[in-house]
Parts: sequence; structure tokens; C-alpha cells
Amino acid sequence: MTGAVQSKARVSEVARVPVERITDALSAEMAQVDAILTTQLNSSTDLIPQVASHLIRAGGKRVRPLLTLASAQLCGYQGDHHIRLAAAVEFIHSATLLHDDVVDGSATRRGRPAANRLYGNKPSILVGDFLFSRAFQLMVETGSVEVLRILSTASAVIAEGEVMQLSTANNLATTDEDHLAVIRAKTAALFAAATEVGGAIANAPPEQVEALRVYGDCLGIAFQLADDALDYAGSEGATGKDSGDDFREGKVTAPILNAYASAETDDERTFWKRVIEKTDQKDGDFEHALGLIKRHRAVERTLADARRYGDQARTAIDVFPQSALRDDLRELISYVVDRDR
Amino acid sequence: MTGAVQSKARVSEVARVPVERITDALSAEMAQVDAILTTQLNSSTDLIPQVASHLIRAGGKRVRPLLTLASAQLCGYQGDHHIRLAAAVEFIHSATLLHDDVVDGSATRRGRPAANRLYGNKPSILVGDFLFSRAFQLMVETGSVEVLRILSTASAVIAEGEVMQLSTANNLATTDEDHLAVIRAKTAALFAAATEVGGAIANAPPEQVEALRVYGDCLGIAFQLADDALDYAGSEGATGKDSGDDFREGKVTAPILNAYASAETDDERTFWKRVIEKTDQKDGDFEHALGLIKRHRAVERTLADARRYGDQARTAIDVFPQSALRDDLRELISYVVDRDR
Repeated sequence: MTGAVQSKARVSEVARVPVERITDALSAEMAQVDAILTTQLNSSTDLIPQVASHLIRAGGKRVRPLLTLASAQLCGYQGDHHIRLAAAVEFIHSATLLHDDVVDGSATRRGRPAANRLYGNKPSILVGDFLFSRAFQLMVETGSVEVLRILSTASAVIAEGEVMQLSTANNLATTDEDHLAVIRAKTAALFAAATEVGGAIANAPPEQVEALRVYGDCLGIAFQLADDALDYAGSEGATGKDSGDDFREGKVTAPILNAYASAETDDERTFWKRVIEKTDQKDGDFEHALGLIKRHRAVERTLADARRYGDQARTAIDVFPQSALRDDLRELISYVVDRDR
Repeated sequence: MTGAVQSKARVSEVARVPVERITDALSAEMAQVDAILTTQLNSSTDLIPQVASHLIRAGGKRVRPLLTLASAQLCGYQGDHHIRLAAAVEFIHSATLLHDDVVDGSATRRGRPAANRLYGNKPSILVGDFLFSRAFQLMVETGSVEVLRILSTASAVIAEGEVMQLSTANNLATTDEDHLAVIRAKTAALFAAATEVGGAIANAPPEQVEALRVYGDCLGIAFQLADDALDYAGSEGATGKDSGDDFREGKVTAPILNAYASAETDDERTFWKRVIEKTDQKDGDFEHALGLIKRHRAVERTLADARRYGDQARTAIDVFPQSALRDDLRELISYVVDRDR
């Protein structure tokens, strides 16, 4: 295990402008979402609000619920069901984080001790189940079966993506297609559902709903690729997950697949197999990995892929007339991709 | 730790008559439910059907989906959505079992190695999430928001019950009220939802739907009390969970609370505190516990409570006219309560 611990820049910490601009534009609605996130944690057992609040109150810019609010507004929605939906999306996201951290044995989340470390695995599993159920209760309140269809499907796809990831983890034979399928399922599916339900609750025309879905899907893929790149190019001084976490777990992410595919010697391939497939790591391995990744421009190529998906997201929302909100949603793409700077 | 391992009689193994009679009456529909349980496990990843089938194909009499089918039929339902609902109920049940076994670190389930032992905790958590999502997708197919309301609420209550149980486990100061709240939430809530959705999908009059809900609630409480009693009165030769499992985990169940409340000496109280609160157990402790439980008639009193709830379940369905199916649902109560014989 390498001792190197660098801070990793997170979406909430750098280049705040576009997220904050959307947040400002939707601040009254986000306050209502936050109120629901708090009141819906009420339970006869204290442990549920404790564990859930530890995660939900730890910060994060609430990108996914913002996307739901922004999508509904972009479609001219006049009701208030989008507030519940945004809260439901954040609850589903929170449930997956609680379960992920148990599955990964994570030590930290959002710069704080992960809930599983603080409260144990049992509450994390069960409170995740509770948040997931609450999310569906919130959707039921909207009375929209279409919304329930979109988010129950997304939830199944996310779980499939997580299971797929179990088989690609530590496997350098993972194809680019398999890797894309994993990140599309485990990350992009919820982004896509978050934007799609915003259009669906507004009863927007099918081409607008589909445009929002594509925007969310491509933004989600770009987000995950940038996230994976950051683990090998993290800037100092930011809080959140530590740079090198993916490496220490032997996670097969895009920078690793790029560097492995470009390996020029058997020594390189042997190195990657040892540290990633066997997670047999010693001092200096992370630095050596960073050197190989730099030499093969593996982070730059990952970010170039992220930008290509960002471009698709940008094009997708051409179907909407120009507006400040559409501009903000576009700037959000650059921000998501280039947040390493 | 006591080395005593006795087999525990399970609902699937003894006094088969009433469950089999209902199963026969509804066999064509149960075959359709089984077909859905199989096809809905299809996934791009092999691990999902593997883990889920290991549990779902292991047997069990499918009491909960049977209750949904029987309830719909009792209300004269003519459609086919009750098939999907019954499958959804079984998926939710299966998801909670997968997560429970991780939370409890269970070694066996339905007489076979538990999925967490065979495949690890990670697949059990994630496949549980998948089954839960699939359950909601099945409900969406019925187009009934009411059904989604009932089962999302039940799911949240179940998770709350499981969290409550974390705080009552190993706690002899648990009140009877708290204990009832736990079993009502963790077990009876799904029985009650299983029967209620059968009435709801049939668009039955409110008093019939409510009668079915009360029947399921009371049957579920009786079921759990009988289950807890069996752990201290298990008959030989049956398969399933081992008798004494609850004791070894220091679980505070009704027989324990009854025996502890009846303790006549400080020695008795000290014994219970050591083995249950501290789970500091040695050879012979389980046998000593069985002796105390017998002396204070703690199993009999637990079963008497179960019968009282059974009587309430029996009375609840008075609102339905006499029929063979109503008779079967009544016999199911006695079977659930008296399955120790």
C-alpha cells in the first residue's frame, strides 16, 4: 500500500460558478427540497435521522436534485411536484452511497468519516433501504406512474451496474464497452432519470423529455470519467475522497484501462497486473503508476472522452429555446468535466 | 456458545395441509407468479440471477404472494395484475432476507448456506437492492398508484422495524410495547401490505380492503411470535434455521422477555443479562435457558399471545361471505400459530 494521500477535488469544491448560478436561480425551490429531505427523515427511531443526516447534511452540491428542478423549469412546469421528485432523487442517491460505502468498505465520504465507519455496516444497509423506500413514497405523492416507472427502472439499472462493477473490479481484461456499460449504469442512469422525470412531471413533449434524458445520460458519463481522472490528477487543498483511493482498491477505471492498453513493455503490464489485479501494492507503487499514467497521457485521454460526452449533452438540449437556464445547464457540463483545474 | 444444534420446524415443513390447500386452489396463478419470479431475474449480469435464485428457488411456501392472490380472489378480482403484485411482494420479501442475512451474519437460510456466506456480503446487498427495484417496476406495470403507496409505505416501515431491532437487540429493558412495535414493523407490515394490495387491485370496498389489512397485520404478528417461540421449542427432523440461533445472537424475543419478566431470583436475572445482553455464553447455557423458559412457561405464553392475534385475524375477515377460500385463510391462522406441533 502506498502511503501517498493527496486530497481530491470534488464537484462541490472547485469552479463553483455554474452550480452556484443554477443554485441561486433555483434557491427558493432548493430550500423546499432541503426541507423535505429533513422532515422525511423523521422516524420513530433516532438512528435513521442520525445516520441519514450525517451523509445528507455533509454537503455535496445536490447536483442531481438541481437537475430535476432545472429540467422541470426548462419545460415550463408550474406545479410543485418537482420538489418532491428532486428530494426523491437525492434520497435514492443517498441510499446508493450508504450501500456503496459498505460494499467498498470506504473510510471517508465527503471529507468526513463514512457512515459505515461511524455507525457500523448494519445501520448503513438498513437506513439505505429506508431512504430508498421514502423516495418511492415521495414519488407516489406526485400521483405520476410515469415518474415511478422512470425511477424504479433507473434504480434497477444502478444496482445492476454495481453488480457488474464487482466483476470488472481488479480485471484488466475489462473491455471499453464493458467499462462504459458499468459507468452508464452505476452513475449516468440516475443523472438521466433526474433530468427525465423533470420533463415527465411537466408533461413536456416526448422530444423534450428524451432530450433531457440524453443530456443527463451524457452528463453522467462525463461526470464519472472526470471523477475517475481526478483520482490520478487530484489538486491539493480540496476536501473529499483522497486521491489514490481507486488505485488502492485496484479499481479498473478509465485512466487505468488507457494506461494498460498503452503499456509498451512486459514490465509495465506485469506492474499493472500486480497492483490492480492482485492489489499487491507497496510504497512507491502509486507514484510509479502516476508516472506511467502521465507518460501515456491516460488522464488527458480520459478527460477527452469526458468532453466528447459533454458535447453530446450540450447538443441534446438544442431542442429547447435559448434561455439563461439552458446556458447554465451547458456551463454545468464544462464545469463537471474540467473541475480538476 | 452452546453446541446444541436442533433443527427448527419452518412454515414449509410441518402441518402442510392449509398452505397446500390454498396453493392447490391457486396453483395456476402461483405458477404464473413463479414464471415472473424467474423471468424478472434476467439481467445482463449472471451474478444477479445466481444470487437471487439461490434464495428464491430454495423453497419456502411463498406465504406472502399466496396471501396477495387469495385476497384478490376473495374480493372477486377478475384481472391479472394480482400476479405481478404477488411477485413484487415476494421480491420485497427476498430483498429483506438478503439484507437481513448480511446484517445478522447468518450462516444458513431455508436449510442451505445463506447467500452472504456463499457469494459474500457485496452481492447480497446489491442483489437485494436490485430485487427491491424490480418489485417497484412490477407494481408500476399495474398502473395503480394506490398499490405503490401501500407497498412503498410497508417497505419504509420494514426498514424502520429492522433499525428499531438494532436498538432492542441484546436489551432486556425492551418493553412489551417496543417489542410489539418491532415485530409489527419488521414482519407484519409486509403480511398486511400483501393482503391489502390484493383488495386494492380488486377495487374492493374500503371495509373489505381494511379487513384484509387487519387480517395480514394480525397474522403477521402471530407468525413472528410463533417463529420466536419455535426457536426455544423446535421439533427435531425439520430443516431450516437451527433452534437456538436467536439465543446465540442474544436476540430479545418474546420468550426471553417473558422468562426475564418472570425471573424469581437475582441469579436468574444475572444469567439472562450475561447470556443475552453480553452474549457471554458457554456450554450448557442454552440448556439452562430452555429450563428457565420451561419453568416459567414462556413459550406457552408467547403462543397464547400468538393465538390472540390469530383470533383477531379470524374475526377481521367476517366481513366476507363464507367461502372455501375464506375457510382456508382461517385455517392458515391455526397452522401458522401451532406449527410447533
